[in-house]
Amino acid sequence: MREPLRGIIGAVPAYAASKPQLLARLKRIEGQTRGVQKMVDEDRYCIDVLTQISAIQAALDKVALGLLDEHVKHCVVEGHGPGTQEELTEEMMGAIGRLLAR
Amino acid sequence: MREPLRGIIGAVPAYAASKPQLLARLKRIEGQTRGVQKMVDEDRYCIDVLTQISAIQAALDKVALGLLDEHVKHCVVEGHGPGTQEELTEEMMGAIGRLLAR
Amino acid sequence: MREPLRGIIGAVPAYAASKPQLLARLKRIEGQTRGVQKMVDEDRYCIDVLTQISAIQAALDKVALGLLDEHVKHCVVEGHGPGTQEELTEEMMGAIGRLLAR
Amino acid sequence: MREPLRGIIGAVPAYAASKPQLLARLKRIEGQTRGVQKMVDEDRYCIDVLTQISAIQAALDKVALGLLDEHVKHCVVEGHGPGTQEELTEEMMGAIGRLLAR
Repeated sequence: MREPLRGIIGAVPAYAASKPQLLARLKRIEGQTRGVQKMVDEDRYCIDVLTQISAIQAALDKVALGLLDEHVKHCVVEGHGPGTQEELTEEMMGAIGRLLAR
Repeated sequence: MREPLRGIIGAVPAYAASKPQLLARLKRIEGQTRGVQKMVDEDRYCIDVLTQISAIQAALDKVALGLLDEHVKHCVVEGHGPGTQEELTEEMMGAIGRLLAR
Repeated sequence: MREPLRGIIGAVPAYAASKPQLLARLKRIEGQTRGVQKMVDEDRYCIDVLTQISAIQAALDKVALGLLDEHVKHCVVEGHGPGTQEELTEEMMGAIGRLLAR
Repeated sequence: MREPLRGIIGAVPAYAASKPQLLARLKRIEGQTRGVQKMVDEDRYCIDVLTQISAIQAALDKVALGLLDEHVKHCVVEGHGPGTQEELTEEMMGAIGRLLAR
């Protein structure tokens, strides 16, 4: 098996331009996970808890798709990533496979 | 469309017995979401961020399956939920559909 | 590990009442898989092939949710399945887990 | 909304080199869908039917990932697709989103 590619230390990541929005979304997701804890703590109804968990999953999927999109544009297509395009493509497919399979 | 069932105020939720473990797992997931923010803040490589997001999704799936399991046992089968078994089953199938479809 | 439950030979399955519709849906899905083969055979554009595959997945998800629904109603809740309710619930959660994880 | 990209008539698809294997896998999936019909026709146990459906889903996921992989290599990276790289990337992200969301 091939070694995983290492991000280049000090390199600008593919998501540099959208970093503030990305952090804001992740902050909101963190808040949602705290909200679910509060629901459980208050003995809220299981199905309502599950609905909130589905909402977090959907929000994480959106973040993941956004990251993938920027990765493809900046790393795979423009070739700014830490490897050859073949390596970067293979690595990206692995990431998509993990998202699909969870 | 049918009204959503409301949890009975003051009722013991189906997850009562495992509440401490459930809260501990949710706390850990909250920590993972903070970890992803730190990675983004430090400009870490996109694929590594995606791998962490997949790990959170997997952890949330586990929590959701655990909740569903207790819901089926306590609410649907034993009939302790806020509705008839038919209503409870329908509602549960809705929750499973949302998890599948995100 | 516990032995898998065996369906009772000669037993009426949970989906008995909707068997004709279920078979019709599966027949249509079979047709969709043939359609995808035709697309590939005609060198159709990859993204169009992928869109068709997503449509088959969605159709299979619907069939799976329908089967689960009937299983819960007839086997788990009414207790007509090949095992105790605890065994049936555990088995059902395994099936849901497999659908989620693929 | 942007018009969908049309595959170029007469163009060699990204999956040209693996077309025989791809067709063989799709043929096998078609056989699996017939197998599920037979199971339903013989009143087989719901959970066993569901297990088979999960197997078909997993097989379709594999085909989809394989197609995506070839699409990225030949169309997005090498730029042989029917559009600019930006259009092709956007289109590909749409396909990944549909696979994730089903």
